[in-house]
Amino acid sequence: MIKYKPADSQASPRFCGVRTFMRLPHVQTVDDIDFAVIGVPFDTGASLKVGARFGPEAIRSSSIILKPYNMFLDVNIFEHCSGVDYGDFPVVPGYIEDSNDLIEKSLVPLIENGVIPVLLGGDHSVTLPELRAVAKTHGPVALIHFDSHTDTLDKYFGRSYNHGTPFRRAVEENLLDVDHSIQLGLRGQQYQPDDLEASKRLGFETMTSVEVQDMGREKVIEKIHNRVKGAKAFVTFDIDFVDPAFAPGTGTPEVGGFTSAETLRLIRGLKGLNMVGFDVVEVIPAYDPSQITSLLAANIAYEFISLIALGKKIIC
Amino acid sequence: MIKYKPADSQASPRFCGVRTFMRLPHVQTVDDIDFAVIGVPFDTGASLKVGARFGPEAIRSSSIILKPYNMFLDVNIFEHCSGVDYGDFPVVPGYIEDSNDLIEKSLVPLIENGVIPVLLGGDHSVTLPELRAVAKTHGPVALIHFDSHTDTLDKYFGRSYNHGTPFRRAVEENLLDVDHSIQLGLRGQQYQPDDLEASKRLGFETMTSVEVQDMGREKVIEKIHNRVKGAKAFVTFDIDFVDPAFAPGTGTPEVGGFTSAETLRLIRGLKGLNMVGFDVVEVIPAYDPSQITSLLAANIAYEFISLIALGKKIIC
Amino acid sequence: MIKYKPADSQASPRFCGVRTFMRLPHVQTVDDIDFAVIGVPFDTGASLKVGARFGPEAIRSSSIILKPYNMFLDVNIFEHCSGVDYGDFPVVPGYIEDSNDLIEKSLVPLIENGVIPVLLGGDHSVTLPELRAVAKTHGPVALIHFDSHTDTLDKYFGRSYNHGTPFRRAVEENLLDVDHSIQLGLRGQQYQPDDLEASKRLGFETMTSVEVQDMGREKVIEKIHNRVKGAKAFVTFDIDFVDPAFAPGTGTPEVGGFTSAETLRLIRGLKGLNMVGFDVVEVIPAYDPSQITSLLAANIAYEFISLIALGKKIIC
Amino acid sequence: MIKYKPADSQASPRFCGVRTFMRLPHVQTVDDIDFAVIGVPFDTGASLKVGARFGPEAIRSSSIILKPYNMFLDVNIFEHCSGVDYGDFPVVPGYIEDSNDLIEKSLVPLIENGVIPVLLGGDHSVTLPELRAVAKTHGPVALIHFDSHTDTLDKYFGRSYNHGTPFRRAVEENLLDVDHSIQLGLRGQQYQPDDLEASKRLGFETMTSVEVQDMGREKVIEKIHNRVKGAKAFVTFDIDFVDPAFAPGTGTPEVGGFTSAETLRLIRGLKGLNMVGFDVVEVIPAYDPSQITSLLAANIAYEFISLIALGKKIIC
Amino acid sequence: MIKYKPADSQASPRFCGVRTFMRLPHVQTVDDIDFAVIGVPFDTGASLKVGARFGPEAIRSSSIILKPYNMFLDVNIFEHCSGVDYGDFPVVPGYIEDSNDLIEKSLVPLIENGVIPVLLGGDHSVTLPELRAVAKTHGPVALIHFDSHTDTLDKYFGRSYNHGTPFRRAVEENLLDVDHSIQLGLRGQQYQPDDLEASKRLGFETMTSVEVQDMGREKVIEKIHNRVKGAKAFVTFDIDFVDPAFAPGTGTPEVGGFTSAETLRLIRGLKGLNMVGFDVVEVIPAYDPSQITSLLAANIAYEFISLIALGKKIIC
Amino acid sequence: MIKYKPADSQASPRFCGVRTFMRLPHVQTVDDIDFAVIGVPFDTGASLKVGARFGPEAIRSSSIILKPYNMFLDVNIFEHCSGVDYGDFPVVPGYIEDSNDLIEKSLVPLIENGVIPVLLGGDHSVTLPELRAVAKTHGPVALIHFDSHTDTLDKYFGRSYNHGTPFRRAVEENLLDVDHSIQLGLRGQQYQPDDLEASKRLGFETMTSVEVQDMGREKVIEKIHNRVKGAKAFVTFDIDFVDPAFAPGTGTPEVGGFTSAETLRLIRGLKGLNMVGFDVVEVIPAYDPSQITSLLAANIAYEFISLIALGKKIIC
Repeated sequence: MIKYKPADSQASPRFCGVRTFMRLPHVQTVDDIDFAVIGVPFDTGASLKVGARFGPEAIRSSSIILKPYNMFLDVNIFEHCSGVDYGDFPVVPGYIEDSNDLIEKSLVPLIENGVIPVLLGGDHSVTLPELRAVAKTHGPVALIHFDSHTDTLDKYFGRSYNHGTPFRRAVEENLLDVDHSIQLGLRGQQYQPDDLEASKRLGFETMTSVEVQDMGREKVIEKIHNRVKGAKAFVTFDIDFVDPAFAPGTGTPEVGGFTSAETLRLIRGLKGLNMVGFDVVEVIPAYDPSQITSLLAANIAYEFISLIALGKKIIC
Repeated sequence: MIKYKPADSQASPRFCGVRTFMRLPHVQTVDDIDFAVIGVPFDTGASLKVGARFGPEAIRSSSIILKPYNMFLDVNIFEHCSGVDYGDFPVVPGYIEDSNDLIEKSLVPLIENGVIPVLLGGDHSVTLPELRAVAKTHGPVALIHFDSHTDTLDKYFGRSYNHGTPFRRAVEENLLDVDHSIQLGLRGQQYQPDDLEASKRLGFETMTSVEVQDMGREKVIEKIHNRVKGAKAFVTFDIDFVDPAFAPGTGTPEVGGFTSAETLRLIRGLKGLNMVGFDVVEVIPAYDPSQITSLLAANIAYEFISLIALGKKIIC
Repeated sequence: MIKYKPADSQASPRFCGVRTFMRLPHVQTVDDIDFAVIGVPFDTGASLKVGARFGPEAIRSSSIILKPYNMFLDVNIFEHCSGVDYGDFPVVPGYIEDSNDLIEKSLVPLIENGVIPVLLGGDHSVTLPELRAVAKTHGPVALIHFDSHTDTLDKYFGRSYNHGTPFRRAVEENLLDVDHSIQLGLRGQQYQPDDLEASKRLGFETMTSVEVQDMGREKVIEKIHNRVKGAKAFVTFDIDFVDPAFAPGTGTPEVGGFTSAETLRLIRGLKGLNMVGFDVVEVIPAYDPSQITSLLAANIAYEFISLIALGKKIIC
Repeated sequence: MIKYKPADSQASPRFCGVRTFMRLPHVQTVDDIDFAVIGVPFDTGASLKVGARFGPEAIRSSSIILKPYNMFLDVNIFEHCSGVDYGDFPVVPGYIEDSNDLIEKSLVPLIENGVIPVLLGGDHSVTLPELRAVAKTHGPVALIHFDSHTDTLDKYFGRSYNHGTPFRRAVEENLLDVDHSIQLGLRGQQYQPDDLEASKRLGFETMTSVEVQDMGREKVIEKIHNRVKGAKAFVTFDIDFVDPAFAPGTGTPEVGGFTSAETLRLIRGLKGLNMVGFDVVEVIPAYDPSQITSLLAANIAYEFISLIALGKKIIC
Repeated sequence: MIKYKPADSQASPRFCGVRTFMRLPHVQTVDDIDFAVIGVPFDTGASLKVGARFGPEAIRSSSIILKPYNMFLDVNIFEHCSGVDYGDFPVVPGYIEDSNDLIEKSLVPLIENGVIPVLLGGDHSVTLPELRAVAKTHGPVALIHFDSHTDTLDKYFGRSYNHGTPFRRAVEENLLDVDHSIQLGLRGQQYQPDDLEASKRLGFETMTSVEVQDMGREKVIEKIHNRVKGAKAFVTFDIDFVDPAFAPGTGTPEVGGFTSAETLRLIRGLKGLNMVGFDVVEVIPAYDPSQITSLLAANIAYEFISLIALGKKIIC
Repeated sequence: MIKYKPADSQASPRFCGVRTFMRLPHVQTVDDIDFAVIGVPFDTGASLKVGARFGPEAIRSSSIILKPYNMFLDVNIFEHCSGVDYGDFPVVPGYIEDSNDLIEKSLVPLIENGVIPVLLGGDHSVTLPELRAVAKTHGPVALIHFDSHTDTLDKYFGRSYNHGTPFRRAVEENLLDVDHSIQLGLRGQQYQPDDLEASKRLGFETMTSVEVQDMGREKVIEKIHNRVKGAKAFVTFDIDFVDPAFAPGTGTPEVGGFTSAETLRLIRGLKGLNMVGFDVVEVIPAYDPSQITSLLAANIAYEFISLIALGKKIIC
C-alpha cells in the first residue's frame, strides 16, 4: 500500500502544478512514508559565491523530468516506497547557529520516526545540524562524502561555523563513525599542504580526484564498501564534486572534476550499503543559466531515492 | 474569519518552501475562499516565441516578494479576503481544442461557487475557454483588455484557434458584452490597415498606445469606467502591453510600450468596477533572464487581488 | 562541376551575410545538388520544454564556423558534392497533423530527385513525416537512432502524435526496416519498466548509454554496421543523446550522456553505410546561452554531409 | 508593380526560413527597388565593448516580427515601395581603412541608382564611408544624428579612424552640410569640457539628452525640421541614444537616456524631410541577453522604411 | 595640486588594467585626497536574494566608462578634487555584528581625516556601521535616503541586525539628525499598514514613489533642500529605488519605480547641500546579466563625486 | 625572502578588494620577483567572435578562488617564488601592428630582467609580439602550443597579421626553435587539406585531438618531453584546446575537444622542462555566462605558476 507517489504525468503534463520534488505530494508528515525530500534553504555559511538558499527551488523545478522507473538499478521506486515533498525547514538568514538549531530540531522527528531524509541544500554548513539530528537516533554514522573540498578546516575568518568546517565539528561532536568514513574527489588548491593531512588525522580516508580517476570506478566502489562495511552511513554530496562544465551553478567550483556519467555510476555503486540519510548541497541557481546543475542535483537525489527503494525491494 | 492566508514570513523567510503564489496555501477547494490563483500552463497557441507553459512557475517564484498590505490602494488583503493557490489546470500540450475544453471544464466549478479566479497564463489563447466558463454563470461580460495586439484575427495560418484569435471567437460565441468592452495599448505593426478596424467592427472600443499616452492616465481611467459602467467585467492583461524593457520575457514583444509605474496605476484605476475574473498571460521565462517580467506579472496579479479585497472592504 | 558551394571566407569574413547553413547558397532547387540542408521549425510535439522552432536559425548561426575540409574523414566536401541551404519547410504552429502533412509533402520532391536531405529540427515529432517521405521512394529504411529516449510510446496525454511516439507510428506505418534498425544512448527514467522492452518488441535493437560506454566505441560501431548491413538507412540524431554539459539547449535533457568527442567519432564510424537521409533534432536555443548546443548540432550535420561526400569520393 | 516584398506569414509562419530583414527576399540588385536593407558587420572601430559585427544578424533575427502596415504613420509599406535584403557588405576585420574603402565602394552603386540604403551596423565608424558614398552622388548632406556621444573627437589613442571620430572626419572631408545638421541626445561624461563645444565649433547644432527631455517631443521635432529645412538628409541612429534599460546591447551605454516610446515618436516626427539614407549602429548582441536591443533596432529601421514609403505615398 | 586622478585613457584604453573605480589609483591613504571610493562587500544581512558582496567588483568594472567632466553639473572633477580607490573594507561573511565592527573601525580614520567616503555596498545593513563611523566625528547627521523600502523594521526573523532594520537602529543609537532626514521612493508591499507609519513615528519625512512622481522633480528637490537645510547630510542610495527595468540586479526589486533619467536629475538636485558621505547599495551582479545595474550604480557614485567636486569648485 | 605573495584570505575574504590575479599585489616592477602575471587586452586580431580584450579582467575575477598550495604538483608556490600582478600592457584597439609594437616593447624589460611572464590574452595574435620580446633575450625558443587550430595561415582576408597567422610569422622571423616545437589538439575543419600540412612544412610537430586522445596522456607527455628536450620553451595555451562544454567563452570554439581534467594533467606533465614564458589566450567573457571558461583559464595560469615554483623548489 504505497500511500504517496508522484502525480500522474499522463493526466497532467509534467510542467503542470506547484513545483514539488518529482511531483510528489507536498505533505508534512512522518506517517506512511519511507522517505521525505526536504529543502534546507540556507547559505549564510558560504565563503565565496552565495545563493544556495534558492537551491531547493531550482532542484524541484528540474525534478519534474524524473519518472519512477530507474532502468540502471532496475527498480520501480513507488512499488516499494512511499515518499513526500516535506517542504523546507525554516532558517534564519544571516544567523548560522540559530539556523543550525532550527534545522536539527526540524529533522529530529523524521529520523526518530524512521523516515529517510533526502535533503536539498543549502550550503555545506547545513550538513552539521543534519548529522546532529541523525546521531541522536543512530549514534555516530559513517560519512560517504563526495566533494572537491574536505570541509574540515578548523576556522574560517576566525569563526568555527561555516561551510568550510562542518566535518571537523562533526568529528569533534562525535557525530561520525570516522573509521568507516571516506571523502572522495578532493582537489582544488589548498591554503597549505597540511589541509589534506588534517582530514586524515581526523580519521577520514581521503581520495583526491586524480586518485579516483586513476583507480577506476569499480575499484573505487569496492574501496567505499570496504571502508563503510556494515556501518550506518550518511551520504553527503557537494555538487562541486562534479566538474564545472557539468555543474557550473555552485559557489566554489573546481576544475578537473568528474562527468555526470562517472558520478551517477559511482552513486549507483553504493547499493547494498546501509544508508540512513542523504543530502546534495551547494547548488546556486544564479550561476546556472542553463539549469544543468539543478538537473544533475535532482538526478543525484533521484539515485539516492532509488537506492532506498532498492533496499526495500531486496528485503521483500 | 479569513481561512486561507500566506505563510508568516517572520516564522520562515520568504525564500522557504514549495513555491505557491504569494506563499498562499496550495489547496484545491472552492470553499471558504474569495479568490483562487490558478496556473494555465498552455502555450500551443503561440505564433512566434513559445514557452508560456512555464509562466505560472515563474510568476509563483517571483511572487514570494509580495506582502499583504497594498499601500497605494490602502488595503490589507487578508483582513478582507481568503484565497488559495489552486495549482494548475491540466492541459494537453500540442492540442488546442482539447486543452480549451479542459480549461473550461476546470474553471466552471470555481465560477459557479462564486470564487473570483486570478489566472496565470499561458499564451493568450487560454482566455477563450476562461471566458466560456465565466459566461456560463455570468452571461456575456465586459472585457477590459490590456494588450499591444487586438487578438481579433479571424484565422492564423488558416486555423481558427490560437493566440491571435480568441476575442473574435469570444464575440462570435456571445461570451462578451462587447458594448462595454475596451482594448488598450494597441501598437506594433499590422498585416493590413484593416486589422485594427476589424476590432472596432466587432464592437470593441480601442485605444492605441499613443492614444493612451497622449490622453493621460486619469482620463483613460475615466474612459474605461465610462465604457464598462456597471457591467460585470473580466480583465485580461497581456504582459506585452508593457514595454519590452520592463517585460522582455514574452513571445511577441512590441517596443514603444508602457512603464511598470504607468501600468500599475492604470490597473489601480479599475477600482470600483464589478470584476468577476482576471488573467495575466504571455509570460515566457526563457526570455526573461533577470526575472523582471515574472516579477511584474506577479505584481499585476497582486493588484487584481487587491481590487478584490478592496471590493470586500468597501462593502463592509 | 560542383555547382553550389559555400561563400569564400577570404573574400568576405564568415560573420558576413544572411545566415545560411555553412554559408551555402540559399536556393530552393532539386537540380545539380547532392544534398540539401533544410530546416523544420516545428515544436508543437514537445512534451516538456519548447522552442525547437528556433533550432534551424541557431544551427545556421553557429554553422558559419564550418570549413570544407574534414581532416578526420579526409574529405574535402565540395570537391565531391554540390549542396544548398534549401530554407525551411512550412508548418502550422499548434497543429501537429497538418504540419506533418506539410513536411512530408515538402520533402517528397527532394527524395524523388535523389537529393539527400540533411534536416534540422524541430522537435522529434518531425521525423515521422520525414520517414513517410523517405519511404515513398525508398520503401522501409533502417533507422540509426541516437537518443536518450526510445520515442516509441504509444500515446502521450492520450494522443498519438507528439515527440514521444514517432518511431512506434513509423513501425506501424511500415516506414522502417526495423530488423536493421538500432537505438543507441538510451537512458533517463522511464514511466514503467516496460518502456524499453516495448521498443525491443517493436523490433529495434537497443543500447543504453551505459551499454554503449561499457562496450567501447569501436565495438559499438561494428555492432551498428552488423545491424544495418546493406540496408538503406536514415540517421536521426536527437541532441539529447549528448550530455547536458555539451548540449544544454534541449527540451528533455538527460544527465549521464556522451561527450562531443565520443559523439563525433561514433558518427564518423557510420562511414560506408548506405545512408539516404539525416536529421538532427531538439535543439532549443532559448536554453543554450553560450550556443554550444547549436554549434555541436551544426558539427553533427557537417559530419553527415562529410559522410555523403565521402560516399561520392569513394565511388569515384 | 511592387516587385519585392516580404514573405507571406500566413503561408509560412514568421519563424520559418533563412533570416532576412523583415522576411524580404535576399537579392543583390539595384533594379526595381526603392530601398535596400544592408548589413555592415564591422566593429574594429570600437573603443570599449566590441561585437557589433554580429549586429546585422541579430537585427535580422528580431525583424521577423515586423508586419507591413505602420498604424502610426498610416502607411502600408509595400503598396508604395519595393525593397530587398541586400545582404552584408564585405569588410576586413581588424583593418579600419581597408574596410572603409570596401564599404564605400560597395555602397556607391546603390546610391548612384537611386536606391535608399537602410544600413545596419556595425560600430559607428561605418558611417564615415557611408557618407563618402552618399556625398559622391548627393554632395554634402545634412546629418540628423541621434546619439549619446558626439563622435567628433579628433583622435582616439592617437589614431584618426575609429568610432569616436567619424563626424569630424566627415566635416573635414566636406561630406556634410553641417549648417543643416544636428546632434541629439548627447550625454555621458566627457574627457574635457571642450568636447561638446568642439562639435559646435565644427558647425553642428547640438542638444543634450536633458535639453531634449526638457523641450518636449513636439518642439524638438520642429527644431529638427527648422534646422534641416529642405536639405538632403542622412539619418544616423546610434542605439545608445536610448537608455540602457531599453538597449543594453551596445558598447558604450549611457544611462539617463530615452525610452523606446519617446524614440519612435521622435523618428516618426522626421516625416516630410528629404532623406537619402539611414543607418542604425552599435548593436552588440553579446550584451543583449533578452534581445530587446535588436528588436528596437529592427523597429527603428522599420520606421525609416515607413518614412521612405510615406514619401512615395504622399507623392502619389 | 591634484595628487590622485584617473589613468589617462588616451595612453591606455579604458578596458586596460586592474579594475579600480573610474581607473583611479588604488591607494590606501587618507592623505592628499578629498574623497575615497571604498567597497563594502558584505551581504549577510539580505533577506531575499543574496550576492551583493560582488557589488563593488561589478561597479568598478562598469565604472571604466566614466570620464572626468560632468556636463550637466559643469564640473571637471579632477580640477577640484583628488581621489583614490581605497579598495574594500574587510568583513566576516556570515557574521553581521563582527562585520559591522570591522566596517566602522575601517571607516573611522577616513572620516576623522576629512575624507569624504563614497561607499559601494553590499546590502543595506552596511549603512549602519558607516553611520556609526560618521557620527563619531560629525555627530548625528541628516539622512537623505533613496529606497523603495523604509528599512526601519524593528526585527526581521526575530533578529535586530539585517538589511531591513538599519535606520531604526541608527535612530535608536542617535546617529541621525532625524528631523532633517527624508526617505524617498517608498513602494512595494508592506507586512502591515503600520510599516510606513513607523518610519514617520521615528521622525523621518517620507515620500512614496507615487508621491514623488506626482509632485514632480523640481518640487521634490526643493522639498529635500527644505528638509535638510544646513545640516550635515549622508546620502544613502538603495539601487532598488530605480525600477527593475533599469536596475534588475538587486535583491528585493520593486516594480513601479524610477527611470535612470529621473534618478540622475534628482541626485544632481542635491547640489549645494552639505554632504559628508555617500553610499550606493544592494547591487547584485548575479541578477544583472546585461550589467546595466552596475553601470547605473557607477554613474550614481559618479554624480556623488561630482557633487563633492562642485562643492570645492564653488568654494574657490 | 619572498617579497610578494597573495593577500591573506583569513584576514579579508577572497571576494574582498580590487581584483588582481590570485590576489597578488599590483606592482609594476621587475625587482624581487620570479614571475609577473600580465594582461594583454587586445582582440583586433580575431576573425570570428570578438571580446577577448575583457579576458584579463575575467580571469582575474575568477582567480580569487586560487590558493597557494598545489596538491598535485606538491608545491607551495610562495615558499619558492615571488610574484606580482603587473597590470595590463597598453594597446591601441583597432590597430594590430601598433599594438604588437607596444606589447613587445612593454614585455622586453621583464624578460631582460629574468622575470618569467604569465600572460593573459587577448586573442592569439598577441603571442607574436610576446615571442619577439622573448627571442630578443633568449633567441629562438621551442613552442609548446595547445590549440585546436594551427594558427599558421599565411594570410587571412589578405592581411598578414591577425589571430590566424602568428606562428607562421614567428617562424619567418626566426623567433622559434621549430625543431623542438609541437602543436597539440588540432581539430576543427580546414579551408583545405593543406592547412595542417603547412604547419608541418614549417617544421612543427603536430598532433590532432584524436591523435592525442588515442595515444593517451602519459605517452603524449613523453612525446612533448622528447620533442622539446633541453630547449628553452614558451608555452602558449589557446583556451579552445578545451571542449566548448568546458570553455564556451571563446571566439572559435571547436567541438570534440578535451576535458578540464585531461587538460590540467597534460599541463602538469610539462614539469621538468625549461620554460621561459607562458600565455593563455582567447577567453571571451561575453560568451561565458557561467564564468567556467575564465575559471579554467585562471587554473591553467596557476598550473604554469606552479611549474615555475616547482623549478625553483627542485633547484634548492
